[in-house]
Amino acid sequence: MSVDKQKIISQFTKYLAEYVAIPSVSAQKKGIPETVAFLKELITSLGGQAEVFSDWPNPVIHGEFTPARVTAATPTILFYNHYDVQPPEPLELWNSEPFTLTEKDGLLVGRGTADCKGDLIARLCALTLYHEEHGDWPCRVKFLLEGEEEIASQHLENYLEKYADTFNADVMVWESGSKNAQEQLQITGGNKGICCIDLVATTAAEDIHSSTAAYIEGAGVRLVQALSTLRAVGTNELLIDGLAAKIVPPTDREKQLVAAESVDPAAIKAAHGLTRPFLTKDIAGAAAFSPTLNIAGLTGGYEGEGVKTVLPHTARAKLDIRLVPDLDPEEVAELVRQHLARHGFGDIKVEYLMGEKSYRSGLDAPLVTRITDVAQTVYGSDKVELLPSSAGTGPMYLFNHYLHAPLLAFGVGYAKSGPHAPNENIRISDFHQGIDFLTDIFADLAK
Amino acid sequence: MSVDKQKIISQFTKYLAEYVAIPSVSAQKKGIPETVAFLKELITSLGGQAEVFSDWPNPVIHGEFTPARVTAATPTILFYNHYDVQPPEPLELWNSEPFTLTEKDGLLVGRGTADCKGDLIARLCALTLYHEEHGDWPCRVKFLLEGEEEIASQHLENYLEKYADTFNADVMVWESGSKNAQEQLQITGGNKGICCIDLVATTAAEDIHSSTAAYIEGAGVRLVQALSTLRAVGTNELLIDGLAAKIVPPTDREKQLVAAESVDPAAIKAAHGLTRPFLTKDIAGAAAFSPTLNIAGLTGGYEGEGVKTVLPHTARAKLDIRLVPDLDPEEVAELVRQHLARHGFGDIKVEYLMGEKSYRSGLDAPLVTRITDVAQTVYGSDKVELLPSSAGTGPMYLFNHYLHAPLLAFGVGYAKSGPHAPNENIRISDFHQGIDFLTDIFADLAK
Repeated sequence: MSVDKQKIISQFTKYLAEYVAIPSVSAQKKGIPETVAFLKELITSLGGQAEVFSDWPNPVIHGEFTPARVTAATPTILFYNHYDVQPPEPLELWNSEPFTLTEKDGLLVGRGTADCKGDLIARLCALTLYHEEHGDWPCRVKFLLEGEEEIASQHLENYLEKYADTFNADVMVWESGSKNAQEQLQITGGNKGICCIDLVATTAAEDIHSSTAAYIEGAGVRLVQALSTLRAVGTNELLIDGLAAKIVPPTDREKQLVAAESVDPAAIKAAHGLTRPFLTKDIAGAAAFSPTLNIAGLTGGYEGEGVKTVLPHTARAKLDIRLVPDLDPEEVAELVRQHLARHGFGDIKVEYLMGEKSYRSGLDAPLVTRITDVAQTVYGSDKVELLPSSAGTGPMYLFNHYLHAPLLAFGVGYAKSGPHAPNENIRISDFHQGIDFLTDIFADLAK
Repeated sequence: MSVDKQKIISQFTKYLAEYVAIPSVSAQKKGIPETVAFLKELITSLGGQAEVFSDWPNPVIHGEFTPARVTAATPTILFYNHYDVQPPEPLELWNSEPFTLTEKDGLLVGRGTADCKGDLIARLCALTLYHEEHGDWPCRVKFLLEGEEEIASQHLENYLEKYADTFNADVMVWESGSKNAQEQLQITGGNKGICCIDLVATTAAEDIHSSTAAYIEGAGVRLVQALSTLRAVGTNELLIDGLAAKIVPPTDREKQLVAAESVDPAAIKAAHGLTRPFLTKDIAGAAAFSPTLNIAGLTGGYEGEGVKTVLPHTARAKLDIRLVPDLDPEEVAELVRQHLARHGFGDIKVEYLMGEKSYRSGLDAPLVTRITDVAQTVYGSDKVELLPSSAGTGPMYLFNHYLHAPLLAFGVGYAKSGPHAPNENIRISDFHQGIDFLTDIFADLAK
């Protein structure tokens, strides 16, 4: 590493320490204005332009680095990051101060290092390194920095809709990512959507003595019977009428990517102490392509110790249904409603809580393949895993919907980064390798 | 009413006031020794013998009144009562002091008036009236007074087993009872049993991110699917394998009694604000003869507001299964276990909490029919309702099992007595009519 490069990376590690030191916990409404001021100042000091949009809480920052010469062929890359972090609790499980960047055993430990303050700093560092070497920015580089990702990106859609022209791009890079347990850099081309609903059974105006169960229907039994019509037993098959017809099957390319994925069922089983068989033999395929129906919570009647012989008048199940293209969350809630009615459970109330659509891609858009090609050069051709969709949920769909550009996600984390957990960390070697990767991406985009 | 009779009833109303004034709340461990001392003194002062058994908490009192001449033909009647009462809470809903017997608008209000201090006092009063008129006791009259009825009669079986010879009888009268909404005196010949179990699904060692629901089985779904195999939809039919074969069908006599019962479905619906159809058209038949399966409680995963996308590793259902003859609670728990295993849910844990068997009768034992005949004379032939079993549960089976005598239940309450509720009360007219009924029973048994 050249002395200059070393100095610059060292400087950006200090920036990361300053950034981590601001406890920008959106769920606790902490540190938001300070973080916005810090980022605006940082982008400006690096030679970029920064503007802060405050139409809705929390503000969104638009950062932009424009090369001296822009032609019709100059591509625009947009980086999405969020500046808010998860609460640090439980504090007693941290081995160092959560908001003090701590270097130890080759790790950088602190809240937000992996999700996703480390990624933003790596991106800005690579950009600076490129500028240092070439005297200009590689292409048009934009940043969209939001402050509500950890509280469900409540106003992101408003911002994207209003500022679509500001943020438009040719390719978009997602907030963060990590290497997998096999030390491969994961690059994902999408994520699942979600439909969160509560199902509520109400069979009477009050709880009743349970001796009446001989002739009065209790809400517990009613809810259980309704729920059991929604999922097959022992598999991940959903039985919601009309759902399957709205699912876009994966392309051959997407299937090939997933088929190449390495999954270790025994390791998953051990990690969570699973006591039941997997719902499918094709774990990777299910994670990428299958909608899910999870009962996240059940509540009703007497939940204490021992016995209370009560016939509950109401009972509730909290469901999250992970969506694949082209399922729409509100449509899915309506399908559940219709399904229940058709199966004789029209009395079960379906309360829609929130949802978002899924975005999935084969990572085969031209600008995306240029980036994945660079990854294989930097990390090694067998050390990059391409996935059309993560099993989790995020607002990728919204970006694609409003900004019309392909997306990909990668970052500087690793399998044990523990985002959201105590002792969240990244490896210094991954941080440096990520900076190299980004610098090479910029070099490629400048061609 | 003769002056003497009036004076005696007035004296026993004072005894009731003294009895109610002792707050014998077993659940709160209050007033037990004072109540035992009061009852021992009362029985002795009336000319009976009283002994206190203290082998297990709380003590059981054996009271006995023996006529001067006892022959082989002299019948023995045993009255079962409990001296403990429900807690008075919520206090703010009482219109008078719970432990002060308050006479108002023809009512006697106070905790325990209906359940069942009023009944014991009425029984002792009638016995005294008989003795006053005839100079001797009508037959051998025994009392078994326990102090744990409101906390599931935890040691009653121990006492019955140990003191079976002491309490043996030819006919047994249950603690209390009431007139129904049609102002008929209800005489019941049994009650249902119960089997209380928890069903627990555990699919992992920890809660997991719900994106894994594509391939990992959550405890919520697992529990719901297991539960739904136990009951038919929309009826009260239980689907537990092997259960039906162990049920003793009602006799013709029992069916006739239930067929004569008057039930007002619209009134039941209105009273509880029911939103669903009844599970059966034969409400009276189901209440008397059908086993039930109630989900009294459901719990698992995230039960708060909004959304938490967690795959719960464990979930629990609290079940109470009401039993009819000859279902045994531990056998039923085992049947549920076997049923679940046979249906592929052998991983669901069945935790047995408590249970008791059912006792049912056609009220046609000779001494019982003598008493029900007296009832029809006192109350009117169309003002007595005979039921082979109540829908609720109690330890009648134990009495029959250890003491080998037929049972019947009746008392001085009415449809709005509200046992267990604030402002528990009996009507003075019912109290007096009940004393007349008991006096006539004694006269009949003395023949």
